[in-house]
Amino acid sequence: MQFTSETTEQGVTERGFDLHVEGERVPGILWLPEGATGPRPLLLLCHGGMQHKRVDTILAKARSFVRHLGYACISIDNPGHGERASEAELAQARALRGATSLPPIDPGRMKQLAARVARAVGEWKAVLDAAQALPEVGDGPVGWWGLSMGTAIGVPFVAGEPRVRAAVLGLAGVRNEEFGRLARQITVPAMVMCQWDDEVAPRDSVLALFDALGSSDKTLHANPGRHVQVPPYERQAWEEFFARHLGRASSPPAPGA
Amino acid sequence: MQFTSETTEQGVTERGFDLHVEGERVPGILWLPEGATGPRPLLLLCHGGMQHKRVDTILAKARSFVRHLGYACISIDNPGHGERASEAELAQARALRGATSLPPIDPGRMKQLAARVARAVGEWKAVLDAAQALPEVGDGPVGWWGLSMGTAIGVPFVAGEPRVRAAVLGLAGVRNEEFGRLARQITVPAMVMCQWDDEVAPRDSVLALFDALGSSDKTLHANPGRHVQVPPYERQAWEEFFARHLGRASSPPAPGA
Repeated sequence: MQFTSETTEQGVTERGFDLHVEGERVPGILWLPEGATGPRPLLLLCHGGMQHKRVDTILAKARSFVRHLGYACISIDNPGHGERASEAELAQARALRGATSLPPIDPGRMKQLAARVARAVGEWKAVLDAAQALPEVGDGPVGWWGLSMGTAIGVPFVAGEPRVRAAVLGLAGVRNEEFGRLARQITVPAMVMCQWDDEVAPRDSVLALFDALGSSDKTLHANPGRHVQVPPYERQAWEEFFARHLGRASSPPAPGA
Repeated sequence: MQFTSETTEQGVTERGFDLHVEGERVPGILWLPEGATGPRPLLLLCHGGMQHKRVDTILAKARSFVRHLGYACISIDNPGHGERASEAELAQARALRGATSLPPIDPGRMKQLAARVARAVGEWKAVLDAAQALPEVGDGPVGWWGLSMGTAIGVPFVAGEPRVRAAVLGLAGVRNEEFGRLARQITVPAMVMCQWDDEVAPRDSVLALFDALGSSDKTLHANPGRHVQVPPYERQAWEEFFARHLGRASSPPAPGA
C-alpha cells in the first residue's frame, strides 16, 4: 500500500493509495480520524456500477463513519471503474449521471461483470490484508458496505472472508444458484436494502437475497422508488447497524477527564 | 377525560384517566414530560391483541418518547382488553404470556375483532379530541403507533383522521378488499414492520399492506422471527421516524443560553 496523497479536513484524514494486485494498479482511499493511532473497526465501502471510489455518497459515508464512530474506512476503484475505466465506460457513466432510471444489464455486460467480480474479490482481500498491517487500522472488526455491484462483489467476498463481522447489502438480487449458495454461507449480521420499484434488481429477487442469507440476525429496509433512490435517512440506519455490531473506536473523554 | 391518578418518575409524569365513550368507560394513560406546558407532538400508542394499556413494551416506548422527544403519549385499554377484559379473556392472555408462537385467529374471533375495531376507532377519536383540549398537549402533530391489532385499528383510524401525520404499522396484513381500500387512503409517512416468519400475519400479506399504502414516503423494516419477536433495536428506528416527521417538542437550551 503506497500512499500517494494526504489531506485533512474537519478532523478526517484522507490518504490516497495505490496497491498492486496481480499486475494491476488498484487505486484507493483510506479515511481515518486525524492523528489516529491504534486499532479500530474498519469499514470497506464498495461503490456500485458506473461509480468510483470517491463518488459523493461514498465520500459522505466515509466522513460520517470516521467522525461519528472513529472508524477507518476504505474505498477502491473496482475493475473497470474510476481511474480504471476506459474512455467509453467513463462516457457511459457521465451520460447516466443524475438519471432516475437505469437501463437493464444486458447479457454481454453481465458476463463482463462476473469476470470483474471475481477479480474484485481478490483485490478487496489484498486491500484488507494491507490495511490491517497499518498500526492505525490493525485487526479490529471489519464491516462491508456495498449495494448493487457492491453486493455482487460483497456476497462472494463476505461469504469467504471470516474477518468481516457485519454487512450492509442490497439493490441486487439472487440471479443464479451459485449466488444463492454463497448468500446462505453468510452468517454474520446483515442489513439488506430493497428499492420497491427497482428497475435493475427486481423486488422479489432482493427479497430472495434477504431470505437466502444464512444470518440469524438480519434486517431488511425497503423503500419506494427506483434503483438509485435510496432515501438519505438510511445513512443513519447504517451507522447504527455498524455501531451495534462493530462497536465504536472510542468514546469522547468523560467530562473533566 | 377524568384523571384518576398521577405519578412522576425520572422526569415522566404518568396520569391515569377514564373517558366515557358511548356508554362505556375507556381507561387510559397520558404520559408527559414533568411540568409540561404548551402544545407538543402527541403519540397514540395502541396495544396489540391480548395486551393492555400498560404492557411493558408500551410503557417503555411512552417513557422513551417523552424523555427523548418531549412528546405526549397516550394509551388506552382497547375493547375487551385490560380493565375491559372478561375473566376468560384475562386467563387466555395470561396463558399466552411469554409464548414465542401464537395460535391462528379463528373465524369467530375474527368477527368479534371486526366489531371491536369499529368501536375502538370511535374511542380513539374521542380520546384524541379530549387530549388535544388539554393545554399541555394542544393541537400539535399527531402520530400513530400500533402493530398487529394496533394496525387492524390503526388503518381505519389513520385513513379517516387528518390530524394523524405519521404512522408505524405492521404485523398485520391485507385480509380483505375493504382493508386494502382503507390502506390506499393513507397518504401520510408510514413505517411498516414485518416479521419474516410471522405465524399470525403471513409475510406476503404484510408486504401487501406496505404495497397498498397510499403514502409516497413509506419504509418497510423486516426481521426474521415470529409474530412477537420484533427486535428491541427497532424502538430507536421508531423514535427517529417520528422525530423526522413530527419534530421534537423542544431542543435542549443552547450552551450558555
